[in-house]
Amino acid sequence: MIEVYSDEYFMKQAFNEAELAKAADEVPVGAVVVVNKKIIGRGHNLTERLTDVTAHAEMQAITAASSYLGAKYLTECTLYVTLEPCAMCAGALYWSQIGKIVFAAADEKRGFKNMGGQLHPSTKIEGGLMAEQASDLLKKYFKSKR
Amino acid sequence: MIEVYSDEYFMKQAFNEAELAKAADEVPVGAVVVVNKKIIGRGHNLTERLTDVTAHAEMQAITAASSYLGAKYLTECTLYVTLEPCAMCAGALYWSQIGKIVFAAADEKRGFKNMGGQLHPSTKIEGGLMAEQASDLLKKYFKSKR
Repeated sequence: MIEVYSDEYFMKQAFNEAELAKAADEVPVGAVVVVNKKIIGRGHNLTERLTDVTAHAEMQAITAASSYLGAKYLTECTLYVTLEPCAMCAGALYWSQIGKIVFAAADEKRGFKNMGGQLHPSTKIEGGLMAEQASDLLKKYFKSKR
Repeated sequence: MIEVYSDEYFMKQAFNEAELAKAADEVPVGAVVVVNKKIIGRGHNLTERLTDVTAHAEMQAITAASSYLGAKYLTECTLYVTLEPCAMCAGALYWSQIGKIVFAAADEKRGFKNMGGQLHPSTKIEGGLMAEQASDLLKKYFKSKR
């Protein structure tokens, strides 16, 4: 059983978003932004649907969270995302000064860590939670596209 | 006199966008995306107005250009922007595979070059066109804020 309001609980919510992306035939990545155990922003990858490379899950979740808070900075918030953010999303997260990032699968090829991106010095980051499920979801998607 | 359809002509259009940002009391940065000597995307910084760190000039110009073209990739396009892109915008430009970037002022502190960001290998980049004017515009803005 998933403990309510645990990291796993919120990551599962990010997975629900990833499933929405998958259902829309998009690369399945999902994200939620949480503050005080409450989800204040959600997003899933919509780059194909919107014909827009900027429409990553994290970008939409950040925009939604800032809109909810009426504040640009997300210093008290945590982002849960099913895949390591890319350099663009890491750059947006840098500007947002987000408190913490929890991601599932690492992205060796396009993740910000190997692309040279950086986060705000005050942002904590953890990777690996439900990483296998996230990798499986992505692998199945790409396999279905071949 | 500015030659029509020269780099300077299009950079001046990016400056017009920067002036719109200034008029809205935003950090004055503007951008246009051009293909075949036609402007197909415009944007100016609106991070305060939209309460959204992702609302940089470049992001909006990229989104607009892709919307116009009905295509995610901007391989034949040139972005003119009054300030060196940040890591977030460089990341978006990477995904867009944009053909060329012409920027005015360098951004030593938050520009993607010193932040470790990278562009797509096929993207050409030039800096320094009308750099002094762009620096002056920014300096005056920040001075007025003190």
